[in-house]
Amino acid sequence: MAEAASRITAEIDFDQQGRQAGYLRAPLSRNTSGWGVIEIPIVVVKNGSGPTLLFTGGIHGDEYEPQIAVSELARTLDPATVQGRVIMLPAVNIPAVMNDTRLSPVDDRDMNRCFPGDPRGTFSEMVAHYLDAVILPMVDASVDLHTAGHSSDAALSTNMHYIADPDGMARTLAAAEAFGAPYNVVFSGVDEGATLTSSVERRGILSLGTEVGGWGRVNIEGVRIARRGLRRFLNFMEVTETGLEEDDDPKTRHMQVSDRANYSFAPAAGLFEPCNLAGDTVRSGDPAGYLHFVEDVDHEPIKVTYKRDGVLWMSAGPGRVARGDTVAVVMNEYTGGRL
Amino acid sequence: MAEAASRITAEIDFDQQGRQAGYLRAPLSRNTSGWGVIEIPIVVVKNGSGPTLLFTGGIHGDEYEPQIAVSELARTLDPATVQGRVIMLPAVNIPAVMNDTRLSPVDDRDMNRCFPGDPRGTFSEMVAHYLDAVILPMVDASVDLHTAGHSSDAALSTNMHYIADPDGMARTLAAAEAFGAPYNVVFSGVDEGATLTSSVERRGILSLGTEVGGWGRVNIEGVRIARRGLRRFLNFMEVTETGLEEDDDPKTRHMQVSDRANYSFAPAAGLFEPCNLAGDTVRSGDPAGYLHFVEDVDHEPIKVTYKRDGVLWMSAGPGRVARGDTVAVVMNEYTGGRL
Amino acid sequence: MAEAASRITAEIDFDQQGRQAGYLRAPLSRNTSGWGVIEIPIVVVKNGSGPTLLFTGGIHGDEYEPQIAVSELARTLDPATVQGRVIMLPAVNIPAVMNDTRLSPVDDRDMNRCFPGDPRGTFSEMVAHYLDAVILPMVDASVDLHTAGHSSDAALSTNMHYIADPDGMARTLAAAEAFGAPYNVVFSGVDEGATLTSSVERRGILSLGTEVGGWGRVNIEGVRIARRGLRRFLNFMEVTETGLEEDDDPKTRHMQVSDRANYSFAPAAGLFEPCNLAGDTVRSGDPAGYLHFVEDVDHEPIKVTYKRDGVLWMSAGPGRVARGDTVAVVMNEYTGGRL
Amino acid sequence: MAEAASRITAEIDFDQQGRQAGYLRAPLSRNTSGWGVIEIPIVVVKNGSGPTLLFTGGIHGDEYEPQIAVSELARTLDPATVQGRVIMLPAVNIPAVMNDTRLSPVDDRDMNRCFPGDPRGTFSEMVAHYLDAVILPMVDASVDLHTAGHSSDAALSTNMHYIADPDGMARTLAAAEAFGAPYNVVFSGVDEGATLTSSVERRGILSLGTEVGGWGRVNIEGVRIARRGLRRFLNFMEVTETGLEEDDDPKTRHMQVSDRANYSFAPAAGLFEPCNLAGDTVRSGDPAGYLHFVEDVDHEPIKVTYKRDGVLWMSAGPGRVARGDTVAVVMNEYTGGRL
Amino acid sequence: MAEAASRITAEIDFDQQGRQAGYLRAPLSRNTSGWGVIEIPIVVVKNGSGPTLLFTGGIHGDEYEPQIAVSELARTLDPATVQGRVIMLPAVNIPAVMNDTRLSPVDDRDMNRCFPGDPRGTFSEMVAHYLDAVILPMVDASVDLHTAGHSSDAALSTNMHYIADPDGMARTLAAAEAFGAPYNVVFSGVDEGATLTSSVERRGILSLGTEVGGWGRVNIEGVRIARRGLRRFLNFMEVTETGLEEDDDPKTRHMQVSDRANYSFAPAAGLFEPCNLAGDTVRSGDPAGYLHFVEDVDHEPIKVTYKRDGVLWMSAGPGRVARGDTVAVVMNEYTGGRL
Amino acid sequence: MAEAASRITAEIDFDQQGRQAGYLRAPLSRNTSGWGVIEIPIVVVKNGSGPTLLFTGGIHGDEYEPQIAVSELARTLDPATVQGRVIMLPAVNIPAVMNDTRLSPVDDRDMNRCFPGDPRGTFSEMVAHYLDAVILPMVDASVDLHTAGHSSDAALSTNMHYIADPDGMARTLAAAEAFGAPYNVVFSGVDEGATLTSSVERRGILSLGTEVGGWGRVNIEGVRIARRGLRRFLNFMEVTETGLEEDDDPKTRHMQVSDRANYSFAPAAGLFEPCNLAGDTVRSGDPAGYLHFVEDVDHEPIKVTYKRDGVLWMSAGPGRVARGDTVAVVMNEYTGGRL
Repeated sequence: MAEAASRITAEIDFDQQGRQAGYLRAPLSRNTSGWGVIEIPIVVVKNGSGPTLLFTGGIHGDEYEPQIAVSELARTLDPATVQGRVIMLPAVNIPAVMNDTRLSPVDDRDMNRCFPGDPRGTFSEMVAHYLDAVILPMVDASVDLHTAGHSSDAALSTNMHYIADPDGMARTLAAAEAFGAPYNVVFSGVDEGATLTSSVERRGILSLGTEVGGWGRVNIEGVRIARRGLRRFLNFMEVTETGLEEDDDPKTRHMQVSDRANYSFAPAAGLFEPCNLAGDTVRSGDPAGYLHFVEDVDHEPIKVTYKRDGVLWMSAGPGRVARGDTVAVVMNEYTGGRL
Repeated sequence: MAEAASRITAEIDFDQQGRQAGYLRAPLSRNTSGWGVIEIPIVVVKNGSGPTLLFTGGIHGDEYEPQIAVSELARTLDPATVQGRVIMLPAVNIPAVMNDTRLSPVDDRDMNRCFPGDPRGTFSEMVAHYLDAVILPMVDASVDLHTAGHSSDAALSTNMHYIADPDGMARTLAAAEAFGAPYNVVFSGVDEGATLTSSVERRGILSLGTEVGGWGRVNIEGVRIARRGLRRFLNFMEVTETGLEEDDDPKTRHMQVSDRANYSFAPAAGLFEPCNLAGDTVRSGDPAGYLHFVEDVDHEPIKVTYKRDGVLWMSAGPGRVARGDTVAVVMNEYTGGRL
Repeated sequence: MAEAASRITAEIDFDQQGRQAGYLRAPLSRNTSGWGVIEIPIVVVKNGSGPTLLFTGGIHGDEYEPQIAVSELARTLDPATVQGRVIMLPAVNIPAVMNDTRLSPVDDRDMNRCFPGDPRGTFSEMVAHYLDAVILPMVDASVDLHTAGHSSDAALSTNMHYIADPDGMARTLAAAEAFGAPYNVVFSGVDEGATLTSSVERRGILSLGTEVGGWGRVNIEGVRIARRGLRRFLNFMEVTETGLEEDDDPKTRHMQVSDRANYSFAPAAGLFEPCNLAGDTVRSGDPAGYLHFVEDVDHEPIKVTYKRDGVLWMSAGPGRVARGDTVAVVMNEYTGGRL
Repeated sequence: MAEAASRITAEIDFDQQGRQAGYLRAPLSRNTSGWGVIEIPIVVVKNGSGPTLLFTGGIHGDEYEPQIAVSELARTLDPATVQGRVIMLPAVNIPAVMNDTRLSPVDDRDMNRCFPGDPRGTFSEMVAHYLDAVILPMVDASVDLHTAGHSSDAALSTNMHYIADPDGMARTLAAAEAFGAPYNVVFSGVDEGATLTSSVERRGILSLGTEVGGWGRVNIEGVRIARRGLRRFLNFMEVTETGLEEDDDPKTRHMQVSDRANYSFAPAAGLFEPCNLAGDTVRSGDPAGYLHFVEDVDHEPIKVTYKRDGVLWMSAGPGRVARGDTVAVVMNEYTGGRL
Repeated sequence: MAEAASRITAEIDFDQQGRQAGYLRAPLSRNTSGWGVIEIPIVVVKNGSGPTLLFTGGIHGDEYEPQIAVSELARTLDPATVQGRVIMLPAVNIPAVMNDTRLSPVDDRDMNRCFPGDPRGTFSEMVAHYLDAVILPMVDASVDLHTAGHSSDAALSTNMHYIADPDGMARTLAAAEAFGAPYNVVFSGVDEGATLTSSVERRGILSLGTEVGGWGRVNIEGVRIARRGLRRFLNFMEVTETGLEEDDDPKTRHMQVSDRANYSFAPAAGLFEPCNLAGDTVRSGDPAGYLHFVEDVDHEPIKVTYKRDGVLWMSAGPGRVARGDTVAVVMNEYTGGRL
Repeated sequence: MAEAASRITAEIDFDQQGRQAGYLRAPLSRNTSGWGVIEIPIVVVKNGSGPTLLFTGGIHGDEYEPQIAVSELARTLDPATVQGRVIMLPAVNIPAVMNDTRLSPVDDRDMNRCFPGDPRGTFSEMVAHYLDAVILPMVDASVDLHTAGHSSDAALSTNMHYIADPDGMARTLAAAEAFGAPYNVVFSGVDEGATLTSSVERRGILSLGTEVGGWGRVNIEGVRIARRGLRRFLNFMEVTETGLEEDDDPKTRHMQVSDRANYSFAPAAGLFEPCNLAGDTVRSGDPAGYLHFVEDVDHEPIKVTYKRDGVLWMSAGPGRVARGDTVAVVMNEYTGGRL
């Protein structure tokens, strides 16, 4: 059988000039609605000539700042100010967004582990396929906004993979500086083959990610960084030439996460008391925190240490962790070389 | 039928001198263990003569700092330094603690809405009855440690109800100062008839609560305040006379929460972006935050305002809120009068 | 301990003149909102002098016509036309209403089996107590609107219990005629001690019930009957004197359901194919339907018969029934005597 | 690896003469039965020479009339009257049938979105593959009986896709007339690539579908139409030459559903009150119904309109609908052309 | 409010002569059947004059031998052979029986922890109340048959509590000998106030329990002992005078379980490998088994020992145990004294 | 896209000399840990030269004896005694092991129906792929230890498929004799294409399975047989030359299970009372057991018979069975020929 087409239809026409706001309609048969659909919000602003940008939030449902920043831009971006096309999806994994969870409640999948997707697969796979096969072929640059969700807190940052091509690398570093988060993290991905980023990179599209919050709360500063970053990125790509009211010369510190020695893991399931906040400077051998076993009287806590000096990128998230969970990620100054 | 006795048995003898560490054994028939029990950690330290203190943590399973602070004290309190008796229960609602949720997964109940409990009721009711009917009659003063859990973040504080008796009021204010959290909140409880605090107060026992964290993370400073507070409270009650290494003269600001005008509620279900952090000074009419509806394109956010000037005691917790949820609680300087 | 007061608070003041629209706030601690509440819609219209009427819908969440009719009246009833007070609760069991189920998803209880309720009990018990202990003491007449939900389809009807006092009986029959459904069913209740009706009757309040739909769909004619019936009932009680546009002289046929011989039960679990629709005239011994066992090849269906001649009040609901389920209820002309 | 064979085995021999009644055995490992199977009822009647017909019911578990009609034919079809072969599967998705839901509770899948299936996939995919790869290669004509389940009510009808080949089109229209439902709907499928019908059509087999009920109840007239239709279809295919007792000259009206303008969708989640019944004549711009928001006091209903004149094929199903749900489908006279 | 009557009705008349087989009908409102009932099988055989005996099985749903033995007696007991009345309930907790679990799936309760029950409580409480308030007042002697379910395996035995009255004690010991299990265990109950046995004893009725199986399988010998025991008990009570085919002189060894030293508990959650089978002679200090932690490499097993010499009454049940679970119960020769 | 690599990483180096104990880390994104992993215990002992053996337990989580025997060997095997390499995975399906179920709670799949797996599939498919694609290419001989879990009890045995190659067949029979279980069963697999065994055999690796327990309990003798068998198998493969303390000349009886006539199935769902224990000699036509219907009064049990003379390999497991479940498997003396 020939490759299946997407079952998802769009209410908007990607080639039309001006602003369109509507929904992607993804079919989902339910017990009480055999022809039921899931509507995924999408706004497209197109004008004149210029590149196509893709801004995505809510691929994980409990990452709030991206949803707020992308939907605000989607409500307010004036087509008259645009040269090119901006595709904005503030709540890609809408069932997870409404369920307030990272994973989709429809299929219990992490959509960011489902790329390049499958048009006949589960809901998450079907949406991943649509992004990969229908949206990405139109796109020149992508910012996929994330936070640390309920897993951790994050030092506010953009992130990117190491890119072998020097021009691509330089351009992405410049894009990150333009976005203007306090940190930009270059990292060598682990278990990354099925993320949206991996699909974007396979197509040679300029790609940025972000970590603009965590701990399951809405980070006020994270929302501000994300809002400003998207506006600045539009200017960087020359899609807009907007004068920005806010502090227009943020400094971004380029960092790197090279390998497993940057990570500290929980050696057992327990209650983790961290010793530092994201952004703190830490030293190898210092305690990252203590794992408590309050269910056992007289059970001494286990000390978990850092394996490397640096700045804390990700700090412990939920109080209670499972064995093998990441409880700290340290980042170092970017050295400019291959990771 | 005569009033039923508790089905819970204690491995330790409350009248024995010295230190005992063990478990309360609460029977819970399971499908694979008809005679199954739930073991609730308890440590009792008794020496010489003096009052009996009760320190409880984990009545809500996702409030971590209390569990850490009480279990650490339970591991380390030296009987030789004690005059009186200290009963420490670091993880009262142990099924909720292990499940990492406020409510107990056994009966889906909030144990702090189950007092004075029922020995034949559900697990939470059975434990509440044991605390009320077996433990409290021995107790002279109680500190029940809480945080804002996943509901909010909290300015680090002790709290107490307004007490009509001036001596009791003065002594409780003094106890709060001794505990030494940055704030002490006097409030007029809402829906309070079924809390542990209500049971404690009905028996005329000196009673303090705390809010030493929130947002579902472990608050590093909250753990420090709780640890130090319990040590200082032991000294205040003259159960210990320990020289404390840490800053020994904390200042506590007495505040009050008088009525519903101190609260801001979510007018609808949505994604709430707050404008302030706990501890911030805020003004009536200012935005507490914005309620976003990212599932609907072009749906303007709703502004939620403060109803009173003051300091933010509780700030928004989870990103996604339900209609009627509390998204902000403002506190004011304590005026000394009846609330 | 003295009898506990309700934990529910009302945003509206029952004694205030004019129209008030707001919510009852029932506290419900959730894992992500310790101070969470459930808001139950309520509209009170009060003017001049006259009796207090209570109109309730949505005690079962999947009974739609009552919710539509009561909420429409609540939106549109003009205080200037009223003499007396009308308390309207279109969606009493709001968690069940939003969950589209008869039972509340909060506690898996049928609220109409929870009266007179318990202020410290589960959500359904707490609300039942509020209706019984706070609302009913104000009320002179009550119409509790129901349908057959997903259990059956119903011939459109009001219903009432037999009342020993002849005046009460006559007045209730007259009220039913005023409401103007095609049928009014007098019945001897089974398992009725815990319904709202039982609480209403214990207090000597004029009481009507309705069955204005079923099969899990919205019955167009049922909505019409319910809308008109409430308006006509207001006139009957002399709370309004509104000229009604619709056919103003409906004929109501008084019927009775005396005992178990009016019922046909499923003798086994299976797929039930009925032979008649609600409102059909049926005869004792005729097939009410056939119980099919499609999971077994060559398994003959079981014939289920009527036990009495009459008119079909309730006809089979869901295709698949459990053993002991009611699959048909026959009604007979009301004979005027004690049931 | 070569293409996997089906894991399902049949107790019956498809090539044997006479009547065989038994089960397809589909392996399903359960926690308490590692070698567990699901037994799917099947009856095959074969005699003399003639075409092979496939009659399927219960691909959706809550569609009752097809299960009743196919199992009745399976119990009663006399091999002596047959020339050819009739394969009858009254309850294909037997776990869904017993669970009384559209979707299978085993894998939470809609089996009619799983074709052509996968022998190593989930239960629904495994069964779909068996039908496609094992059964369909034997088949000359297929009637897959459906209803609108709990999603809607349906005007009693057969249905078919537009077929480009004029002979195939004419023969299918004739088959529909032979079946004899009040309507026959020619439609241009949406999201149809994974239905049984799509598998049937890919193989060039004569294909009819039906909609003989809905609203989650057993439609008495729908059962009658389905029973008669199967008998008449057997005669049409010259597999039987039975004199039929019932009215033997039903008139079927050929209709069409061309595109999205035939559909009305719910613009939000709410309680939908329809204005018409299936089979009613409706006009573009007229209200299809009103969407109520009974959870909000003073929230005006939203009017939903028809987009096209015609006859109502599908009318609203459950009272409570989700955003994007189909609440009405209008059909028009078949114009004979390409859709 | 006066004490509520039971909501359960019986199809049979307890005072009627002869054999009646039918059901107790317990109302249980479900989402798809508001007037739904649960039918509990009951058979009553009454003839001439003599005592009333109650035989109950299935109070725990996963205890099979009692269900088999009581239902077989219920099918076969000839009224002509009876002097007195025999009430047989082979499957009291029928939802648990059909769900194959100890606890009822309706309310997640252990019915044998719900006595004396509550007519307005949950399903298990309602049934417990019916047994206590309606059935027990008629009864002279009760045999409540149990097994160790999935919790353990049991040495085949009857059991009883120590009875202060010497005549009652002697008569119960004699009844146990008549029943003829290999062992009869006299024990001092723990957490026993809410069992059926406790209700029976409060009324001064002769009471026997049994443990005739376990490990979640049907014990062939256990079924034989239970069948024979009930027949022998009928003769002992002089309700029948049946010559029994099977070995008619079984020897019963009277044993006792005095206190917690007879029990061994799991000190942690893990995989328990026992060292002995039920019925084995064991010695204090010997290993009862080893607790394995296969999830941790190089984690040594924990040895669990017996605390007393004796015969193993209960041996480990499921492989995986929770902390505090009973993994072995030792019994000793009955010493004749007060426990 | 090229074939995907495994997402699983190993903490140990398969090529390193000596003993290594650690974990396979399988990524599993959870709601509270986006970078979460599942750690699967693995111990590798490598020394000198010789074949590579793979010992696996816990592919089904509720099969305990294999987990105990393999983890004990993994803790104690001295590298100095080894010539070759031994890869030991005592708890392959660790989520199922901790959940005490056959199927994995992560994806509700039977891992032994997932081979050869899929690196991008569900958890069970990902692990199956790792075993097939990463581990098996290193392996010369495999013993995959199983029991009958909760499905049945099993006569203690090894098992193998018939192998067409006479040398392979002879060598496997010799390996089974070396292992030394009471029985070795040669069988013709049903539904076997997706088991680990099938993957092993496809690669021409010497393959043994075991059935060393069942009924959901830990079989004491089964643990002993498994422990001894692994030690003896090491010697047979000349990886060790250890003198074994235990009885060193066990006799193994070679048996066969040829086809469906060896199996007895439950003809309906019910409560199955078996007549024999595993290991009993049985005769065709004799009752294997009786299926009881305790929910229906006066419902006669159904007798289920054996279809063949032989020795009982698998006897009934849980008391309550579903239609189609295997309730008995008979084995016969191995005849030496092709099955």
